[in-house]
Amino acid sequence: MIGGGQGAFIGAVHRIAARIDGEYELVCGAFSSDPLKGKASGVALGLDESRIYGSYKELIEKEKQLPEDQRVQVISIVTPNHVHFEPSKMALENGFHVVLDKPMTFSLDEAKQLKTVVESTGKLFCLTHTYTGYPMVKEAKQLIKSGKLGKIRKVYVSYPQGWLSEFLEGADNKQASWRTDPGKSGIAGAMGDIGTHAFNLAEYVTGLSVSHMCADINVVVPGRKLDDDGAVLLKFDGGASGVLIATQIAAGEENNVRISVSGEKGSLEWQQVDCNSLIVRWPDKPAEIYRTGGGYTSSYAQHNTRTPAGHPEGYLEAFANLYRNFALTVKAGLEGTEAQPEWLDYPGVEEGVRGMAFTENVIASGKSDQKWTPFTI
Amino acid sequence: MIGGGQGAFIGAVHRIAARIDGEYELVCGAFSSDPLKGKASGVALGLDESRIYGSYKELIEKEKQLPEDQRVQVISIVTPNHVHFEPSKMALENGFHVVLDKPMTFSLDEAKQLKTVVESTGKLFCLTHTYTGYPMVKEAKQLIKSGKLGKIRKVYVSYPQGWLSEFLEGADNKQASWRTDPGKSGIAGAMGDIGTHAFNLAEYVTGLSVSHMCADINVVVPGRKLDDDGAVLLKFDGGASGVLIATQIAAGEENNVRISVSGEKGSLEWQQVDCNSLIVRWPDKPAEIYRTGGGYTSSYAQHNTRTPAGHPEGYLEAFANLYRNFALTVKAGLEGTEAQPEWLDYPGVEEGVRGMAFTENVIASGKSDQKWTPFTI
Amino acid sequence: MIGGGQGAFIGAVHRIAARIDGEYELVCGAFSSDPLKGKASGVALGLDESRIYGSYKELIEKEKQLPEDQRVQVISIVTPNHVHFEPSKMALENGFHVVLDKPMTFSLDEAKQLKTVVESTGKLFCLTHTYTGYPMVKEAKQLIKSGKLGKIRKVYVSYPQGWLSEFLEGADNKQASWRTDPGKSGIAGAMGDIGTHAFNLAEYVTGLSVSHMCADINVVVPGRKLDDDGAVLLKFDGGASGVLIATQIAAGEENNVRISVSGEKGSLEWQQVDCNSLIVRWPDKPAEIYRTGGGYTSSYAQHNTRTPAGHPEGYLEAFANLYRNFALTVKAGLEGTEAQPEWLDYPGVEEGVRGMAFTENVIASGKSDQKWTPFTI
Amino acid sequence: MIGGGQGAFIGAVHRIAARIDGEYELVCGAFSSDPLKGKASGVALGLDESRIYGSYKELIEKEKQLPEDQRVQVISIVTPNHVHFEPSKMALENGFHVVLDKPMTFSLDEAKQLKTVVESTGKLFCLTHTYTGYPMVKEAKQLIKSGKLGKIRKVYVSYPQGWLSEFLEGADNKQASWRTDPGKSGIAGAMGDIGTHAFNLAEYVTGLSVSHMCADINVVVPGRKLDDDGAVLLKFDGGASGVLIATQIAAGEENNVRISVSGEKGSLEWQQVDCNSLIVRWPDKPAEIYRTGGGYTSSYAQHNTRTPAGHPEGYLEAFANLYRNFALTVKAGLEGTEAQPEWLDYPGVEEGVRGMAFTENVIASGKSDQKWTPFTI
Repeated sequence: MIGGGQGAFIGAVHRIAARIDGEYELVCGAFSSDPLKGKASGVALGLDESRIYGSYKELIEKEKQLPEDQRVQVISIVTPNHVHFEPSKMALENGFHVVLDKPMTFSLDEAKQLKTVVESTGKLFCLTHTYTGYPMVKEAKQLIKSGKLGKIRKVYVSYPQGWLSEFLEGADNKQASWRTDPGKSGIAGAMGDIGTHAFNLAEYVTGLSVSHMCADINVVVPGRKLDDDGAVLLKFDGGASGVLIATQIAAGEENNVRISVSGEKGSLEWQQVDCNSLIVRWPDKPAEIYRTGGGYTSSYAQHNTRTPAGHPEGYLEAFANLYRNFALTVKAGLEGTEAQPEWLDYPGVEEGVRGMAFTENVIASGKSDQKWTPFTI
Repeated sequence: MIGGGQGAFIGAVHRIAARIDGEYELVCGAFSSDPLKGKASGVALGLDESRIYGSYKELIEKEKQLPEDQRVQVISIVTPNHVHFEPSKMALENGFHVVLDKPMTFSLDEAKQLKTVVESTGKLFCLTHTYTGYPMVKEAKQLIKSGKLGKIRKVYVSYPQGWLSEFLEGADNKQASWRTDPGKSGIAGAMGDIGTHAFNLAEYVTGLSVSHMCADINVVVPGRKLDDDGAVLLKFDGGASGVLIATQIAAGEENNVRISVSGEKGSLEWQQVDCNSLIVRWPDKPAEIYRTGGGYTSSYAQHNTRTPAGHPEGYLEAFANLYRNFALTVKAGLEGTEAQPEWLDYPGVEEGVRGMAFTENVIASGKSDQKWTPFTI
Repeated sequence: MIGGGQGAFIGAVHRIAARIDGEYELVCGAFSSDPLKGKASGVALGLDESRIYGSYKELIEKEKQLPEDQRVQVISIVTPNHVHFEPSKMALENGFHVVLDKPMTFSLDEAKQLKTVVESTGKLFCLTHTYTGYPMVKEAKQLIKSGKLGKIRKVYVSYPQGWLSEFLEGADNKQASWRTDPGKSGIAGAMGDIGTHAFNLAEYVTGLSVSHMCADINVVVPGRKLDDDGAVLLKFDGGASGVLIATQIAAGEENNVRISVSGEKGSLEWQQVDCNSLIVRWPDKPAEIYRTGGGYTSSYAQHNTRTPAGHPEGYLEAFANLYRNFALTVKAGLEGTEAQPEWLDYPGVEEGVRGMAFTENVIASGKSDQKWTPFTI
Repeated sequence: MIGGGQGAFIGAVHRIAARIDGEYELVCGAFSSDPLKGKASGVALGLDESRIYGSYKELIEKEKQLPEDQRVQVISIVTPNHVHFEPSKMALENGFHVVLDKPMTFSLDEAKQLKTVVESTGKLFCLTHTYTGYPMVKEAKQLIKSGKLGKIRKVYVSYPQGWLSEFLEGADNKQASWRTDPGKSGIAGAMGDIGTHAFNLAEYVTGLSVSHMCADINVVVPGRKLDDDGAVLLKFDGGASGVLIATQIAAGEENNVRISVSGEKGSLEWQQVDCNSLIVRWPDKPAEIYRTGGGYTSSYAQHNTRTPAGHPEGYLEAFANLYRNFALTVKAGLEGTEAQPEWLDYPGVEEGVRGMAFTENVIASGKSDQKWTPFTI
C-alpha cells in the first residue's frame, strides 16, 4: 500500500475492503511522505519492519528485487490526487497490478498517459469507484441492459454532502485541507472528489456516454480555493438527457448518493441510504423492491452478496466487491483461466480517463458563457 | 364555478376542496363550453336549474342581477388555460372575488393585464398553487423565515410525473389532449403545467426570487407538440443557486413533488409522498422530523391542520387550505375586520405573474444558446 | 347530528367526512347535553335555529313531525360512549338511518339489543371504524380474499398512541376526561377506544374471526381508572394466530395503526403513516408496492379513491368513504336499485357487536389467570 | 475455528467478522465432523495443512502442545447447537479464549455448567448475539441508560423471517435440516434460533430483566418437528411489560429484527432494515434521527463505527464489532492494561445462560395452561 498512514481516511477503508474476503494480505507499505510517520503506521499495522518503506519509489524498487513468490502482487495507491500518477506508472511498469483511489490522476493529460501505460504493460488496473460495487447498483445496470425499462430517456444523479459547509480548511482539518487545495486535488474540488463518482455511477448504470454538458460550478464558502458545489445539465449519446448534482455544502447531509433513471417502459431509483433496495416503477403495475440477497436477482448482484437477504451489506462490502473481483481476475490470470464476466465488472483505466475528462470538461463548462459544451477527451 | 363539467379532473378537486371546511356552498355554474353538457353537470351536482348557465358570460351577467344576498360571492374558474383570462377579468370587473386554477393565464401579457384588473377592482384573487397549502410546506417556509437554517445557499425542486410517457393525446385522452395542445395550454406543456408548481414552491418556501435561468427543455415523446420534460439551473437574488426539474415522461412516477433547501446552518427536505413530514438536518445534532399536527409547529402549520398528529392529511386538505384561507379573508373583508397573517398566506396574482414569467422565460432559455438568461417580467 | 358541539373532536371529523363528497347536507343538530352550548354550536355551523335542538329526544321527535321531504334522513351520533345506545335506538325506531361513532355501545348487552333494533326496523346503520375506509386497507382485504397470499397464518395488528402517557385527565383535558372515565367510556379505556379499531381492522382485512384471546391489560399511568395499555395473543377460527397491541402510553407515538398478515404464499403490510401504500412480500420475487390510485388496483380500492395516484388521500378521505358508501346505499334504497358490493363495504351493527364482545372478552381475559379464554358473544 | 466448513452459513460470517478489523488471523481449524470435508475446507481457506485438524479434540490437544507464541489464542466455535458445550468447555479448560455462536448450548443445564467453567478458568468468553453490535443499538442502550426516556414502560421486540414458510427440511436444505432437528437444535426451533436474539436484544437495550412470560408457541408448517412461530407476553422486573415475536413462517420477510421501547418521557425505535438510524420520539418536540457516524453520538456508538456518517455499515460490521471488542479485551489482558468499558460491551456467558433459560421457559410456558409463568434459571 502506498499512502494511507495515520490520520488518513481512505487508506483504512481500502485495508478493510481488501481484508473482508480474505483474498489479500497486507505485506508491505510506504504509508506517508513523512518516513517516520510511515514507519509508525506500518508498525501499528503489524508489518514486518523490513517491508515498511520510506517512499513509494523505495517500495517498488525493493519489492521488485524480492523473489517472485514473496514480493507483493497488487499495489494499492491511496495518496492524495497529485501523487496518483507517478506511483501508478512506476508500479505498472515494474510489473505490479495496481488498485488506485479515484479520481485517477491530477489531470486529464496524466490520465491519458496512464491509460497508455496500462495498455502497454498489460498489468491489471482497478480504480475504486466504490458505488458501482453495491449489489443493487449492479442489479440496476443489468436491468437496464436487459431492456426491461426500454430505451433510456432521463438520468438524474446526485451526491450531496454537508461536511464542507463551513471553512474547515481554516481549522486544521487534514481531509479538508488537501481536498480544497488546487496543488493537491487538481483543478476541481467537489467535482473531482464526488462529481466524478456521480458521473461514473450514471455512465455505469445506464451504459450510456455523456456527450454534452452545461455546468453551474460554484465556490460557496468564502475563502475556499476550489469549487464546493455544482449542478450540470447532461446530454448522452443516443438522445437521453439528465442532471448531475454534486455539492459539499448541503449542511447536515451525509453522503446520500442517489440515482434515478427513466426509460420508455419504467423507471428505477437507488440511493445509498437504503443501499440494499432498488425501487423499480412501472406505469401499469405495482412498483417493485429488488433486494440484496433476493433469489430472483441477477448473477451480478448475487456474486457480490455475502449474506442472506435482510442482513444489510454496506459501503465496506461494496468497496470489498471491487477488491474481490480484482483479486479473482488477477488469480485467473495467474492460473491461466478465463475470468468470469461478473469478476471483470470493476472500474478500470477507461473509467478513470472519462472521470478526468469529466472534471476538466465540467470546470471548463462552468467557466463558459456557451450553453452546451461537447464532452471531449 | 366556471368549467369543471363531467370528464374534467381539476373541477371536482376544487369542489371537494371548497366543501371540506364548510365555508362554501356551490350555488351556480357554467360547467362546460357545451351547454347541454354543462346543464347535465349542474343537475348532477344538485344545482337549481335556474342557476346553471350556458356560458361564463351568462353566469356573470345573470348573477350580477341577483340581489346581493343571493348572488354568488366567489367564482371558481377551472377551465383550460386559454379560458382563464377573459372569465377572470369579467368576474373581477363585475364585483366577484375569484379563485383561479393555475397557470394563471395563456400568456405573460395576459397575466400582467390581470394583475392590473385585480389591483384596480380591489377584489380578492386566489391562484391554486396547491402545494403551498400543505402544513409542512408552510412549516418549511416559516423555518427558513425564522433564520434557523441561516442564509439560503441551495434550492433543489423536482416534479416528476410519468403519465405522459406514452403518446396519450393520440388515444383520445381528454386530459392529455388539451394539456399538450399549444392552442389550449399556451407555449409550454410540462413547464406550464407542473414546472410552474415547482417554481412557485421554490420561491414560496425560500422567500427568494429567481434572477437567472439556464434551461434544457425537451419534447421526448415523438409527435408531441409541447415540451414534456425539462431541467433548469437557477440563480436567485442574493446569491443562492438551484435546480428545477419537471418531467412528465418518468414512466411509473406518480406526482412526487419534492423540495430540498440548504442554508449555512442546516437543510430541510419535503416530498409529497410523505407530505406530513418535514425533515430538517443539522451538521452537529440529530436530524429532526417535524410532523403535521405537532404541538411544536408554527401557527401557520397549526392553522392549516384539522386532525391530531398521525391522522394523515393529504392533497385535498392542502387544496382546501387555499379555499379556507381565501374564505376567511373574504369574510374578514365583509365584516370589516383584519385578516390574520395565516389567512393571507394563499397564492395570488403576483405569484400568477411570476409563474407566467417563468413559463415564458424558461421556454426562451430552452431555445437560447446563451447560458444564463435573466428572469424578466 | 347528535353530539359534536364546540370542544368535541370527533364531531368535526364526522362533519368534514360527510361534506367531502357532497352527499350530505347538515340540516339539524342537538350538539350538546348543555342546551346553550348546543345552540351556540349550531349557530356557528350556520344551521337554521329552528332545527337546533336542546336534546336528542327533541331532535328525533321534532324531525319526525316534519314532512318527509324536509326531515333529516340520516342521523350521525357522535356522543361519548354512554350516550350511544339510547339515541341510536330511538332514531332507528323512528325511521331514521344512523351513523354511529365507535365503539358501538357502553356494553355488549346494549350492543346485542341494538342489533335487534337494526334488524327489526330495517333501517340502515353504519359504525365508523375509519381505518377500513382506506383504499389500501380495502386492497389488502381483496388481495387476501383472492387467495393470492394463500391460507392466512399470522396476523399482527398494532395501534400505538402516546397522548395519554401523562395524567391528562388531571389537567382538565376534555378528551382525556371522558375517555378515562368508566361512567362514560365503559369498562375499558384503551381497549375500547383503540383496541376495538385494531380488532376490527384485523377481522376486516383477513375475513377471519377471533376465537380465543389471552390478554395482558395494564393501567400504566398512576391514578388512571381504566386501562391505558394492552397486548393480546389471538387465535382465529381456521387456525391462524396473531398479536394485537393497543397502547396510549407510548410517549411520542402519534396514531400509527398498522397491520401485517402472512399467508402460506406471501405477506402484506399496511400502516397509517404511509396510508397510500400497501407492501406485499413474496418469497421468490421482489416485494410490491400497491398504491392508492394505481390502475391495477381492485374495484374496491378504485371506488374509494378521488385523485390520481401520487396525490395523497388521508384520514378524512377514509372517513368520508364510510359516509359516501353509506349514502350510496341509502340512495339505492330510496331509488329501489341494488347497492353495489363496493358500496355495502362499510362497517355495520355486526362489527359493532363483535367490537363490544372484544372489549368485554379482552378485559375479562386480562383479569383471568387462565391462559386462553374463548371469544364469546 | 471449530465448525464452519463448506456448506455452512454462519462460519463464513464469523471469518469475515474476524478479518474486518485485522485483529485476528485464522491459523487452524477443525471445520467439519467429516475429516475429509474439514481438510478440504481448511485448504480452501489457505491454512497450513498441519493445522487443519480432524476433530475439535485434536485441535485443542495439538494446539495446546505448540509453543505459546505459535498456538492459537482464541477459538471460534460455530457448530450446530448440540456441539457447543463440549468443545467450549474443553477449549476453556485448556487455556483458550472462546467465541461461541448462539444459542450458547443445547440445554439450560449445559449453559449453567459452562458458566461455571468460564468463571473457574478465568478465560474470556464471547457469545455472538450479533444485533447488539450495531452502533445504533448501542446508542439506544446508552440513551435509555442516561435516563432521557425516563422509566421504561413498554418493550416490543420482533424477529420475523419467512425462509421456513415451506417444508425445506424435506428438500435437503442443510440449514433447514439441522435447525428443525430436535437432536441438533434442542427443544426449540424458532425460539432458540431467533427468539433468543430478540430476547437478548430486549434485555440488552433496556437493561431490564424479564421476570414472567406467557407464550403462544406454534408449529405451523405441517411435518415440522420444532416450533417455527411464537409470540410472548413479557413482564420485566420493575414493572415494564412487553411483547416478543419470533416467527420463521412470515412468507417473504427477510430478517427485519426490530425493537421499540417507550419510557415515561419518550420512545425509541430501531430496525435492522435501516440499521444506521435510531428514531427517538418525544411528546413535545420533533422526533429525532440518530445516525451511525453522527458526531453527537455516544462513545459506544462511535467506538463501533468505521466510516463517516452516510456510508452504511451493516450486519458484518456489527458482527465484527463483537470480534473486535473481544480482541481488544483479550489484548488488554495480555498487556495487563484495563479494558475500556466500550470494549467490554460484548455478550458473554451470563447472556448465554439467560438465553437458554429463555428457551426452556418459553417452551414450557407455551405448553402451560397457566397464564403467567415466572422466568426461572
